[in-house]
Amino acid sequence: MAFRDRIAACHTWRPEDYRPFLLAGDARPLGWINRTFASRLNDFPDVFEVTDQAVTLPARYGDFDSRSAALQKVLQNLHLAGEIPKWRGEDYGISRRWGTAPLFRMERGAVPLFGVLAFGVHVNGFVRSPKGLKLWVGKRAKNKSVAPGKLDHLVAGGQPYGLGLMENGIKEAGEEAGVPPDLAATARPVGAIRYICARPEGLRNDVAFCFDLELPADFEPEPDGEEVESFTLWPVAEVLDRIRATDDFKFNVALVNLHFALRHGLLTPDAEPEYQAIVEGFSISGV
Amino acid sequence: MAFRDRIAACHTWRPEDYRPFLLAGDARPLGWINRTFASRLNDFPDVFEVTDQAVTLPARYGDFDSRSAALQKVLQNLHLAGEIPKWRGEDYGISRRWGTAPLFRMERGAVPLFGVLAFGVHVNGFVRSPKGLKLWVGKRAKNKSVAPGKLDHLVAGGQPYGLGLMENGIKEAGEEAGVPPDLAATARPVGAIRYICARPEGLRNDVAFCFDLELPADFEPEPDGEEVESFTLWPVAEVLDRIRATDDFKFNVALVNLHFALRHGLLTPDAEPEYQAIVEGFSISGV
Repeated sequence: MAFRDRIAACHTWRPEDYRPFLLAGDARPLGWINRTFASRLNDFPDVFEVTDQAVTLPARYGDFDSRSAALQKVLQNLHLAGEIPKWRGEDYGISRRWGTAPLFRMERGAVPLFGVLAFGVHVNGFVRSPKGLKLWVGKRAKNKSVAPGKLDHLVAGGQPYGLGLMENGIKEAGEEAGVPPDLAATARPVGAIRYICARPEGLRNDVAFCFDLELPADFEPEPDGEEVESFTLWPVAEVLDRIRATDDFKFNVALVNLHFALRHGLLTPDAEPEYQAIVEGFSISGV
Repeated sequence: MAFRDRIAACHTWRPEDYRPFLLAGDARPLGWINRTFASRLNDFPDVFEVTDQAVTLPARYGDFDSRSAALQKVLQNLHLAGEIPKWRGEDYGISRRWGTAPLFRMERGAVPLFGVLAFGVHVNGFVRSPKGLKLWVGKRAKNKSVAPGKLDHLVAGGQPYGLGLMENGIKEAGEEAGVPPDLAATARPVGAIRYICARPEGLRNDVAFCFDLELPADFEPEPDGEEVESFTLWPVAEVLDRIRATDDFKFNVALVNLHFALRHGLLTPDAEPEYQAIVEGFSISGV
């Protein structure tokens, strides 16, 4: 087993298995839809133009509100038919790139079916100790729809429409790990990773924003008992050993933890032959 | 002007302007050679098979020593003809990826002509101050062959064959900036960036390994007066302003400084609309 296996597991997108999802008049793919779901969208000719080449939202849906409303109508229909694996009752803002205005909003549970860009907040809670850095490792509840029972960060969450990233991180830190807002607000943004990954829930086309939260030695996170089963403090070397040898960490959490290890000099290019492969694994092209 | 301009300036490779440089029997391009230089290599049919599709080193050069010797003979010939822009008298080890054994060694001045992978060490010297982080900024001598007069890190250097990265960084830190070896040895590896860039010297196909070196407030680097004209301590915000507004920083130094700013939370995704573009600029595909 190698770090490379964990990286490859986050980059499993094969473009030939998908059709681009387009806004009329713009050739740049906004998302990627698999054949089965494209055929199903063919049942909604008022909203989608489905061909063998692409799925297109017509020009008459020309602004945020009309696009959002048209999509919502279809998605609720599919939801009632039991065809959205997990309805969240929470919207994501959908754009081509972070920092540009969302083109529409969309129920979170449908986002991987359209393979549109999604943003997430990943907060690594770490503690300095005389023996080096330690990471708080969460264990996801066994009944989670995504990656049940897998190992996780202190805090992570998808980015809902209308919240700031830090705002979302602080909210999730309180809900999932009992981190007081003042402490959570000291989290520092430290970069992002990018992957497109075919998963049971659909195509994850994600920017994962990474944050470091330094915690006092006497702080203990509190699992909420629903999303998170437990938290344990691990030496980073043990985290890395587990990532190299198993897929116990959630697929994207393994990548974000490698990002943490590199930034803190816990893997070094002189000693780690996979260093370049790891770096390239933080972006889409590298693999 | 935008950070995006600096990023685009590091990703100017257009594959259609180059032919792959191959080892016989392996279809994976090892480098990229432009038309003019490919035609010139046609003058050495003992060593290169030149076609419209590729430049290939034949199978009879089957190991490190025979490849290195064959290339050296051609390159010295071109050097004597005045056709290697800057002969360095120093070899790089050439491989497909960091962490794999070099396939041959090659005079540094010829590396961009073959567009093969090169490694570099980029050391940012920084100081913590009550007003935030500051960076030591070097000014390159006006007679440097690459990027004369441009702004630079505390220390940076190409990676010669047979040295470790830290070993090279410590050596360069002493030579270029008068950093004592004990202090230079505290530099911490913090990641790497990747770009393929068409430059006056040829095609730069680089992995730039980034290091952070925290310096005491009373330390002053000493310019060697040959490679480096001067060093000045800048607040990081001023470095970022200068990068956004001008191309005063050397092309790849701008990217490494953006990497520093992101890792230290000096640019934040909530406030910086170019955040994703910057992250994607650290890898080849992103642009």
